[in-house]
Amino acid sequence: MNLSLSTLRAAYADKELSPRDVFAIIGERCEQYRDHNIWIHQLSSAELEPYFQRLEGLEPTSLPLYGIPFAIKDNIDLAGIPTTAACEDFTYTPESSAFVVQRLIDAGAIPVGKANLDQFATGLVGTRSPWGACKNSFDPSMVSGGSSAGSAVSVALGMATFSLGTDTAGSGRVPACFNNLVGVKPSIGLLSASGMLPACRSLDCITIFALQCDDANAVLSVAEGEDSSDAYSRANPFANSTRHYGQWQGALRMGVLPASQLAFFGHEGYEQCYQQSLAAIGSQGVELVEVDFSPFIEAARLLYEGPWVAERFIATSPLIQKRPEALLDVTRTIISAGDKGSAVEAFRAQYRLKELRKAATAILASVDCLLTPTAARPYSIDEVNADPITLNSHLGYYTNYMNLFDLAGVAFPTGFTSSGFPFGLTLVGEAFTDRRLLSVANRLQQLFTLPLGKEQSPYQQLATLPVSDQQRIAVAVCGAHLQGQPLNWQLAERGAYLLAKTSSAPDYKLYALAGGPPYRPGMVVAPEGEGCAIELEVWSVPSSEFGSFVAGIPAPLGIGKVSLQDGSVVSGFICEASGLAGAEDISHFGGWSKYLAAK
Amino acid sequence: MNLSLSTLRAAYADKELSPRDVFAIIGERCEQYRDHNIWIHQLSSAELEPYFQRLEGLEPTSLPLYGIPFAIKDNIDLAGIPTTAACEDFTYTPESSAFVVQRLIDAGAIPVGKANLDQFATGLVGTRSPWGACKNSFDPSMVSGGSSAGSAVSVALGMATFSLGTDTAGSGRVPACFNNLVGVKPSIGLLSASGMLPACRSLDCITIFALQCDDANAVLSVAEGEDSSDAYSRANPFANSTRHYGQWQGALRMGVLPASQLAFFGHEGYEQCYQQSLAAIGSQGVELVEVDFSPFIEAARLLYEGPWVAERFIATSPLIQKRPEALLDVTRTIISAGDKGSAVEAFRAQYRLKELRKAATAILASVDCLLTPTAARPYSIDEVNADPITLNSHLGYYTNYMNLFDLAGVAFPTGFTSSGFPFGLTLVGEAFTDRRLLSVANRLQQLFTLPLGKEQSPYQQLATLPVSDQQRIAVAVCGAHLQGQPLNWQLAERGAYLLAKTSSAPDYKLYALAGGPPYRPGMVVAPEGEGCAIELEVWSVPSSEFGSFVAGIPAPLGIGKVSLQDGSVVSGFICEASGLAGAEDISHFGGWSKYLAAK
Repeated sequence: MNLSLSTLRAAYADKELSPRDVFAIIGERCEQYRDHNIWIHQLSSAELEPYFQRLEGLEPTSLPLYGIPFAIKDNIDLAGIPTTAACEDFTYTPESSAFVVQRLIDAGAIPVGKANLDQFATGLVGTRSPWGACKNSFDPSMVSGGSSAGSAVSVALGMATFSLGTDTAGSGRVPACFNNLVGVKPSIGLLSASGMLPACRSLDCITIFALQCDDANAVLSVAEGEDSSDAYSRANPFANSTRHYGQWQGALRMGVLPASQLAFFGHEGYEQCYQQSLAAIGSQGVELVEVDFSPFIEAARLLYEGPWVAERFIATSPLIQKRPEALLDVTRTIISAGDKGSAVEAFRAQYRLKELRKAATAILASVDCLLTPTAARPYSIDEVNADPITLNSHLGYYTNYMNLFDLAGVAFPTGFTSSGFPFGLTLVGEAFTDRRLLSVANRLQQLFTLPLGKEQSPYQQLATLPVSDQQRIAVAVCGAHLQGQPLNWQLAERGAYLLAKTSSAPDYKLYALAGGPPYRPGMVVAPEGEGCAIELEVWSVPSSEFGSFVAGIPAPLGIGKVSLQDGSVVSGFICEASGLAGAEDISHFGGWSKYLAAK
Repeated sequence: MNLSLSTLRAAYADKELSPRDVFAIIGERCEQYRDHNIWIHQLSSAELEPYFQRLEGLEPTSLPLYGIPFAIKDNIDLAGIPTTAACEDFTYTPESSAFVVQRLIDAGAIPVGKANLDQFATGLVGTRSPWGACKNSFDPSMVSGGSSAGSAVSVALGMATFSLGTDTAGSGRVPACFNNLVGVKPSIGLLSASGMLPACRSLDCITIFALQCDDANAVLSVAEGEDSSDAYSRANPFANSTRHYGQWQGALRMGVLPASQLAFFGHEGYEQCYQQSLAAIGSQGVELVEVDFSPFIEAARLLYEGPWVAERFIATSPLIQKRPEALLDVTRTIISAGDKGSAVEAFRAQYRLKELRKAATAILASVDCLLTPTAARPYSIDEVNADPITLNSHLGYYTNYMNLFDLAGVAFPTGFTSSGFPFGLTLVGEAFTDRRLLSVANRLQQLFTLPLGKEQSPYQQLATLPVSDQQRIAVAVCGAHLQGQPLNWQLAERGAYLLAKTSSAPDYKLYALAGGPPYRPGMVVAPEGEGCAIELEVWSVPSSEFGSFVAGIPAPLGIGKVSLQDGSVVSGFICEASGLAGAEDISHFGGWSKYLAAK
């Protein structure tokens, strides 16, 4: 059986299974895949017992994550269980769980264990661990991807419904790609980092791996929330709240890379998968436009070649200073360089980053989101062991820039190579577009209907609400707000633009209201059979400014709904009946401008 | 005559004066105050000639700053005139003007000259210049304040209508305080820094000195605008656009410092002025609440004791490395320390700053703005020369944190010491609250009606539009959005809160509309004499979320204006007459809840 949220919720609700039953199945699978090196610490029966007991006697529907098993990357605290960061000498046992972990547990989720990772979350391969290289769920000779290695593989192999990873350079996305999962790299600060061991504290995110977007959104909804104890935690704006998750409707324009900026490092299978995925998406009415990826590539290089390695040094101090031999050779080599840089170099790099970010902002503003491969190519464990730094850096080609630019990303599967290895794409947007990206990924997944994870459980068609662009509102105007009329500036100053000159449905009457200036018409629904079509303009107003526009409209006018010629309904000016005293019926002019011209 | 914008505009419009006449007066004043060391370069007649010629033949009302004289701090470029940064060996002659300077010139403003400053904008005193210590406009034995020294003194002494300064640590505010001026320290990036020599590039702002808030706002409106060539430039949100400037109306709650966190460094005159100013403001219905200033004080210390000095080192490289003797001793001493820090220290300081910022955010969210002294005390030039670093640091006690925290500030005069030396306060708010702060300062200035600048021209009562809080909108609900009713979540999820349970004016009828669920009432204005008071709730909705709330309301309902019991008018639900078909008049119940209870 697959462990998707809907499967488990249904089984719990129907009392077909208890959490103990589910953990018995998970225990077997852990045994079966023991030599995949997924776990640093798997919770014992005794350690699980309090979680089971807490849920007994509760209705399964009373908690959003009742009995849902999850894996925790071993650089995130779980109370009473050692946190190792894949470095034995670094180990400590926290008294309390990370902010996010505690929220999940409070919601009924049960931890399966602490998952293997690249030591100190430094790496995208999953091989840099004294607990052994974590093996890929589809091909044990291949890397799992990292650094959130065990987190991804445990979900793909059916040992957890979801897992927590972390992501500084791509650690929440690359393993999703290599294991046929959805990987949500939230906006920095959307998930509190309290109780997470930093890699680069200014850039780190806790991430979510899941079989499908619905599950990831459900977990995100429980885990998110501002945390006053984390200086990098941020409040989630309403436009990005969980109610804006669904299945994306409407037109989409995505930025894709020109051929010259694509890199697959010789992997034809991945190149082929990419082209096929793009073709499938393009054929579904998504407009794909080439954008310049060079600011992203240059920023990506800054992450390891620039001063941000100093943050990794800070995170591993004082161990790396006192006992450098406690670290793996490759990890020590990378991190110890972080001690060398000067503040002058740090600020110079931050200036350069700011310039690159400005360019990236303009590119992102030209599209709904970016769409790139998640990883350039997979490697075998042997290949990485032979050349651990260069090959690792290839895996970050499409991911390293993201947190430096303060962006959000969702990695999702879109196919398999001819040898059956998973491939995926990543959607990229500005910070706090997480729900929009998840909703778009959710729509695009309907195109591919892939099996979930490695368990080959069939794709589930999910019932999701349609959601669409909430950033702008179309409003029909019929009088003083028309182009050239005296109140049009109220639209212009709010950044509105004209969408269409059109007419209403033939159901209205137009009145010239008493009073003025400004002289104003009132449009009202006519009695059956007595209506006319009235000339209108439809303007697109930024949602954030529409409220003050509405609040500025004096009685008897207001904003309600207006039916257009083409049958669609948009926001538009309406008029209270009481305001028609002394008004003149000017419907026969067909519109306010014609009436003014004739007057 | 004073050179306020309104004075000059009136004189130009009435053809009483030409720009040449005004510059003749300015020339005399420059001669009169020659030994104040205001100018590094005063434009010659030949250099001014093209500006005069350009305006000839144009209507004075055709350009917003027609013939308006302004001073430019000599770390901001004016095409064809040397930029020195008060360091002869650093001097270069730019081919083009700074972005902001060009905008002002395009709008008709005429540069008077390049103004003296603390070398490399490093200092708050105005004494650190090879061109001589700039003397205070009220008392030549006292410091002008700096680093924008000449910029402030030139406006106070009637040689310019306004001036451009810069502000990293307080250079746009301290000299305003010491010279009886308004000093606008805009949000970082509101004014492009292109063509300004950086001090700390990540923190620098170009600032505006003016006699009064109206002038400062007019200049800001011309100068502001996003600049793609400045990586730190940012778009101005609509809520901060020039149309939101005016005279602030309504309640105000300001954070002030507890006595234990105030510092005047022994200056009783300033302490007295502060208490008197606060008493005057408090007596005018402004609520003053004590807030903890300690995160601000700790951040202030980071500016010179932390890694940000590395930015000053970058800005003066390579000169400071090749020819350190080219700098003044005090300037070199401060800046050369910037070479020493490590990237590790830089990131550690940025982490601490982030934590302090989090605390500051919570404090700022609890009030409409902060209100602090602008400077702790003035010093004489002799005192500063005897102890240049410690006394300088005292001047930054209330200012150094501001750009590290990415805040906006407006300094404005509020009184004089018994010896006639000016004193002022600073309003502090989040980034992009510039117009709100200016509007509040404009209102508070009406309390003090001080003479303008040093010229003792009388206070001018300005005609300004009333403006008020645009951040939240009050909306009256009467049906399914009432507390406990099925659509109330649409308010709650947008962060709305209940302001009042009240009733409408006795002018309405309430109908139970046909259809549902959800069942909905429609409230309409009754014919004269037939109305009732209807029970309502008034909710406060964030303005940015009100638009999507309105857009989600289906016909026949909409949002218009509703009159309340107390005679006030707020946004609220209205109903189209066409929607009353099949509706039941339930007015006699007095409200939707009572109708539902009786049903």
